[in-house]
Amino acid sequence: MSATLRLALLLLAVAVCQGYQSNDIDEEDELVYEPSKYGSLWPLPQKVRVSEVSFKLPSASFKIVDAKESSAGPSCSLLQNAYRRYYEYMFGSVRKPGYVKSRAAGPSEISELQVWITSADSECDSYPSLTSDESYELTVDQPNAVLKASKVWGALRGLETFSQLVYEDAYGAKNINSTTISDFPRFAHRGILLDTSRHFLPIKVILANLEAMAMNKFNVFHWHIVDDPSFPYLSRTFPQLSQQGAYHPYTHVYTPADVKMIIEFARLRGIRVIPEFDTPGHTQSWGKGQKDLLTPCYSGTTPSGTFGPVNPILNTTYSFMRQLFSEISSVFPDAYVHLGGDEVDFSCWRSNPDIQNFMEQQGFGQDYSKLESFYIQKLLDIVTTTQKGYMIWQEVFDNGVKLKPDTLIHVWKGNQQQYKDEMANITSAGYHTLLSTPWYLNRISYGQDWQGVYRADPQDFKGTEAQKKLVIGGEACLWGEYVDATNLTPRLWPRASAVAERLWSAKEVTDISDAYSRLSMHRCRLVERGIPAEPLFTSFCPHEYKGV
Amino acid sequence: MSATLRLALLLLAVAVCQGYQSNDIDEEDELVYEPSKYGSLWPLPQKVRVSEVSFKLPSASFKIVDAKESSAGPSCSLLQNAYRRYYEYMFGSVRKPGYVKSRAAGPSEISELQVWITSADSECDSYPSLTSDESYELTVDQPNAVLKASKVWGALRGLETFSQLVYEDAYGAKNINSTTISDFPRFAHRGILLDTSRHFLPIKVILANLEAMAMNKFNVFHWHIVDDPSFPYLSRTFPQLSQQGAYHPYTHVYTPADVKMIIEFARLRGIRVIPEFDTPGHTQSWGKGQKDLLTPCYSGTTPSGTFGPVNPILNTTYSFMRQLFSEISSVFPDAYVHLGGDEVDFSCWRSNPDIQNFMEQQGFGQDYSKLESFYIQKLLDIVTTTQKGYMIWQEVFDNGVKLKPDTLIHVWKGNQQQYKDEMANITSAGYHTLLSTPWYLNRISYGQDWQGVYRADPQDFKGTEAQKKLVIGGEACLWGEYVDATNLTPRLWPRASAVAERLWSAKEVTDISDAYSRLSMHRCRLVERGIPAEPLFTSFCPHEYKGV
Repeated sequence: MSATLRLALLLLAVAVCQGYQSNDIDEEDELVYEPSKYGSLWPLPQKVRVSEVSFKLPSASFKIVDAKESSAGPSCSLLQNAYRRYYEYMFGSVRKPGYVKSRAAGPSEISELQVWITSADSECDSYPSLTSDESYELTVDQPNAVLKASKVWGALRGLETFSQLVYEDAYGAKNINSTTISDFPRFAHRGILLDTSRHFLPIKVILANLEAMAMNKFNVFHWHIVDDPSFPYLSRTFPQLSQQGAYHPYTHVYTPADVKMIIEFARLRGIRVIPEFDTPGHTQSWGKGQKDLLTPCYSGTTPSGTFGPVNPILNTTYSFMRQLFSEISSVFPDAYVHLGGDEVDFSCWRSNPDIQNFMEQQGFGQDYSKLESFYIQKLLDIVTTTQKGYMIWQEVFDNGVKLKPDTLIHVWKGNQQQYKDEMANITSAGYHTLLSTPWYLNRISYGQDWQGVYRADPQDFKGTEAQKKLVIGGEACLWGEYVDATNLTPRLWPRASAVAERLWSAKEVTDISDAYSRLSMHRCRLVERGIPAEPLFTSFCPHEYKGV
Repeated sequence: MSATLRLALLLLAVAVCQGYQSNDIDEEDELVYEPSKYGSLWPLPQKVRVSEVSFKLPSASFKIVDAKESSAGPSCSLLQNAYRRYYEYMFGSVRKPGYVKSRAAGPSEISELQVWITSADSECDSYPSLTSDESYELTVDQPNAVLKASKVWGALRGLETFSQLVYEDAYGAKNINSTTISDFPRFAHRGILLDTSRHFLPIKVILANLEAMAMNKFNVFHWHIVDDPSFPYLSRTFPQLSQQGAYHPYTHVYTPADVKMIIEFARLRGIRVIPEFDTPGHTQSWGKGQKDLLTPCYSGTTPSGTFGPVNPILNTTYSFMRQLFSEISSVFPDAYVHLGGDEVDFSCWRSNPDIQNFMEQQGFGQDYSKLESFYIQKLLDIVTTTQKGYMIWQEVFDNGVKLKPDTLIHVWKGNQQQYKDEMANITSAGYHTLLSTPWYLNRISYGQDWQGVYRADPQDFKGTEAQKKLVIGGEACLWGEYVDATNLTPRLWPRASAVAERLWSAKEVTDISDAYSRLSMHRCRLVERGIPAEPLFTSFCPHEYKGV
């Protein structure tokens, strides 16, 4: 390691080597924390070689440019935007912009990062997808650094990595070491679920978290947009849904323009937006604006005035769903929509005499999961006609609903053994799956719970290699009961960063000590970029958070 | 209740009546939440009578004025400051300030709040103390509202209460109901401990939390200013302590001007600042700037290079403490200083041959708690010469150190039975005490943990009435291992508000349902005033937090 890099790492190490406790009851396991040889890289790239040779970066004149051979040029605003963003992350926005003489690179400096998109179709104007190529190669050496990627998605990941290699020396000068990186994600689906129904999240909060996602190479925003408590999605086809079902019809809704902006903001960062419209349960707020959609519950022989899940026995239900999902399929460009399907409570269905008759007609007996499957089957057929694939929560699979082969089954239930068995069952049936059970980050406890989060692995179950390949990744979920704009961001970061590394880096990257060191520096970087990511433990950041 | 008040409460109730769960593992106990007849008052005053008659407040022309008979006039900047602050809280800062014709109050409006300090000495320019009178009487009726208090401290509490009575009707107009309140605190010492050693807290964060404290009628900021990890207090006498012991000597220290400003900011809100300089343990950071202060630990017969608690056998130690506490006693005006005394680890003392000899000379045998008491006794004598009273953690009492009768013993250890026994023991020995054990708010868990916090009562132990009277109150503690500027404020609020009501309101105020309703509205008020107080549960605020 170069002397300056060593110094920078030692200075930062001061922050993480001290493990003093307040007069408090439990002690953490003591770990000895040493600076990582990988500095602050997070998530760790697949192949990294950092040499001891360091170069200076001339702040004012440093350029990020399209390589001559690149298939993406100045008209690719996705990249031009990213160049500006990463220049600002690396050098701050306060540099004197004044006239800088063009000059050859000095003997130990790097004056350019050249970004070279090698594929004829850069995908600059496309949306990212489950099959997007996010791989890249990064070479930092004189006279220039070169970032090669087949598509713009790999370039975005590589820009983040490049920015993580830059460090300040003792004089405040920006340095980077000679480095070779070859990188690609272990899993294609690396998501964060945010819940905008239990608490409304102002657009500003969603955007800030999309920024933080990009800094952690996440690529899916699972937008749990509506649920029982509120319906903030402003539908063009059924405006009464949010008019009646939102917390407030003007201040607590997402208009079509808001949604469009969020999708574009995400796209510019290589992030897919998958909306979840969960049915037939979790729909109380839907009923306020849509008459006859929900099942009237009975108390004895008379309606009680309360409502249960979506009413599965009316034709009007399916005609409503057809229109709504037709709108959704055009508003959200991603190839997938999440259809929910979890936690359907049968008690209301059971109480309703019309439902009872229907059950008899259909020969379902008393098995209400058959009624649920009946509903879901019809919904899946409707969504299939919109040309979308679908994700569903594991209950839909558990209940034996017939699914398209490309269905993504989302595992969220049970203890460790149970979710592993579930992953084994799903993949042995030949379906693709993704994991969330160990990553319910809304659940909190005292201490460094990121370590448990970090240790979980979505391929760690009994199954063949072919089964393991059916695991497309996972999602960190932050359900909304206890979070809103006041506390969401620090509760999510850097705990979700632990998930990010599990889903991006090689399976073998499991050293908790090394992770602690890199993650501590990574969280200070998030803070410096304006994300209020909470501390892992007693420590400090050179630049503390500026907010309250 | 008036129709408009009823409407306002019903609108807010929407937020708290819905208890839907995400697909998550545990269910909360379901409570039925109804709007409280006390609206959003928090902490609940001792005696409240709210009538159904409502009045309008003319936003632009409303005045908070000194009553003619008041002993505090325009020169009392503490009150003038508070008038401005509360006007802004009630009416926002965006009102058109333009010329407003002076006019008589309309038939159903209140145009003035008159603040009447009845005692000849208003204490406007004093510091609050353990014996400050915080009682007040508030009458809201035509033509004017009147707030009577013996001292400015009661006026501050009454202004907060008045501001909590104001609500918006359906047209956005400000209303207040005819009300009579007679109020005083149940306990004299109602504190919050913040720890600026494990993480440095920027001044801005400390000030915001002092604001929030005033909104909750807290009156003590227990500033755990230094500890093992860092020494951010810039001492005039020993500048090397922070020069060497702070995380950074310039960016992570509190200068004399900073400390002065924090004390004055607190005073203006009726909040005492009690600094804690914890010795002889928890002093690793002190050793960096003060040679020979800490005990050298031995490994066999040679010094190991590490250090233990303060070295209690050197005269230089006491001469250092004399100078340091002399400075502290003049920098911090409060009559008390917290001397710590918790968690002294004896292993280093045991390893050191000089300490062993001293133990033998003194006839302490192998009982190192005697050595600890020897040190503490000398320290207490030193602090006594500075004319300060002292607070200490319970261990000092447990170890049988001789204490001045006015010592405040701070209980923090054990389970519920143990802390109750400790309170009984301390008070049966005739000492004053305060409780923190159930209020270690750094400890977090999933769900509505404010309810457990709310249920704890510092007088709930076996003892005589005389013993109960020795309980001066309690403190919510937020130790710093896992909090810094990024997450401290939402982690503390509104959980600390539960402690605030326990310490201010009558013993009988224990209805969780009523508390939930008032606290939900109180937390939305904190949010509207710029404090990112986290949500209690699924809900919304009319004005969500504007930050990230």
